[in-house]
Amino acid sequence: MIAGLDVGGTKVNALLIDPATGVVHARRRASSDGSGSELVDTIGSLVAQLDEAGSGSVDAIGLGIAGLASRSGVVRYSPNLPRLVEFPIGSSIESATGRPVVVGNDASTAAWAEARFGAGRDVSDFVFVALGTGIGVGVVANGDIVLGGNGFAGEAGHMVIDLDGPTHHTGQQGPWEYFASGSALGRLGREAAADGHFDAGLQAAGTVDALTGVHVSNAVAVGDAQALQILDEFCHEVARGAANLVMLLDPRRIVLGGGLTDIGEPLRAGVAAGLAGTVLGADHRPEVEVVMAELGADAGAVGAGLLAARRLG
Amino acid sequence: MIAGLDVGGTKVNALLIDPATGVVHARRRASSDGSGSELVDTIGSLVAQLDEAGSGSVDAIGLGIAGLASRSGVVRYSPNLPRLVEFPIGSSIESATGRPVVVGNDASTAAWAEARFGAGRDVSDFVFVALGTGIGVGVVANGDIVLGGNGFAGEAGHMVIDLDGPTHHTGQQGPWEYFASGSALGRLGREAAADGHFDAGLQAAGTVDALTGVHVSNAVAVGDAQALQILDEFCHEVARGAANLVMLLDPRRIVLGGGLTDIGEPLRAGVAAGLAGTVLGADHRPEVEVVMAELGADAGAVGAGLLAARRLG
Repeated sequence: MIAGLDVGGTKVNALLIDPATGVVHARRRASSDGSGSELVDTIGSLVAQLDEAGSGSVDAIGLGIAGLASRSGVVRYSPNLPRLVEFPIGSSIESATGRPVVVGNDASTAAWAEARFGAGRDVSDFVFVALGTGIGVGVVANGDIVLGGNGFAGEAGHMVIDLDGPTHHTGQQGPWEYFASGSALGRLGREAAADGHFDAGLQAAGTVDALTGVHVSNAVAVGDAQALQILDEFCHEVARGAANLVMLLDPRRIVLGGGLTDIGEPLRAGVAAGLAGTVLGADHRPEVEVVMAELGADAGAVGAGLLAARRLG
Repeated sequence: MIAGLDVGGTKVNALLIDPATGVVHARRRASSDGSGSELVDTIGSLVAQLDEAGSGSVDAIGLGIAGLASRSGVVRYSPNLPRLVEFPIGSSIESATGRPVVVGNDASTAAWAEARFGAGRDVSDFVFVALGTGIGVGVVANGDIVLGGNGFAGEAGHMVIDLDGPTHHTGQQGPWEYFASGSALGRLGREAAADGHFDAGLQAAGTVDALTGVHVSNAVAVGDAQALQILDEFCHEVARGAANLVMLLDPRRIVLGGGLTDIGEPLRAGVAAGLAGTVLGADHRPEVEVVMAELGADAGAVGAGLLAARRLG
């Protein structure tokens, strides 16, 4: 058995996973203040609980983290876990638990879970695109997860697609994430509302400033025509960045994950239509499939565990 | 022994290669009209010549082609070889020669040659960027070449980096190739000359319209300050696209290849400086090395041969 953990800023979710099947046999959860030494204790305790859950003891531990995690198990950058930066969380947990530990970016680990047991299990080349507050990407090529030289691969939300575009909170001008994340969906909703083109959203939010992506999603869910128009624009922005990934990597499939997938089929269909109209040379190549991720919110933790299992040979 | 062939619009270069070392033991060349049936005969004849060159017979054949070549050995798109499109060149040569054939995009095959025996031989993750008339890219991740689901990976010159940018001959607005190919170097030179900022280039070319990237390269070679300024701007454009590749793939190294590498160290240093100033989170990550390719014009053919050798198991 392996442990896969999703380490967030305020809580840790721990799963006991059979690496041969990806099946989750037990779950434990703890709150956390996100500092290094506290996390070592918290995770040690969670692993002990999983050991005792009755399905077999933990042989290896994988951590999925939102941020840049080096292959050596040091978090180099993480807005969600600022207190963890430069702390050797991987080796510290190895010492504390006596078990091998792998630390990875949660989009990459989620992509690996989808590759093994989810929406990418039947293809060797696909890209997982997590649409949440930002954009995280996981690349699977030649049947293997691409972690990069340092373990930092998948920061495709920071790919610049509009050199003279608006300035993002990263300081970059026109990165993909500015146009196509959950934050962007909210901005598109506010822009539409301010122009008088999103009545349902404005009514639900009260003011333009209070309107977020959730209001757009909710209105899409009931078939509001103005919300569908906003979503269509949003999907086009997702597709623009995805088209760049297709040019570079030639994936068979784009797998959409992250919180925005709650929108469901209108999102998938919109991105698929946008991609078909954006990819260069569409006459010369098979259409790239756009599908929804299958493993939901567990994917990051499951994939981290599966990567740790590989360490066992 | 293996045969690696570089198939161009008007000629074919064939190399006899030892797959264990990458050493080229013989070379043969033929002109070609670029049509399918003629190419089958021409390549059959070249392979027979290599068989008889005295270093051992050809066990497998690799073709490097400028364009989209499917994994099944059909060229799907190629401005250089329009008569070859949709012709099953791979299987036809297999039938004609009785040997396994692999067909690949020349940037990907060159990247694989650099991975095995050139500037990428000591790293598992790097990106090869061929700067010529256009931009071709080869991605090496986890120590393997990324060919993509169809074999079309590496078309990074068509990644859009400026959504509202100028229209390229592909019909796209603002692809990387518009800003950072050999054609772009010529355009930057003409723009500078038209503004009175490239006297040496204007003198050498006679008129602004006659000025090309070669005039910029030549002036750089003699240390012309205005040409170095143009090159600096060009290198910044190369770096902008390369930064996107770094975000997505986290390579240890960018390997520069293609005709523009004749410019030498000023190009390498300029791209390295541009990249250091463009990559997001440079404080949190080791600097990405920028180096020159080592295998020169043979790389595409050598790498195609090496990919064919893998088919032999």
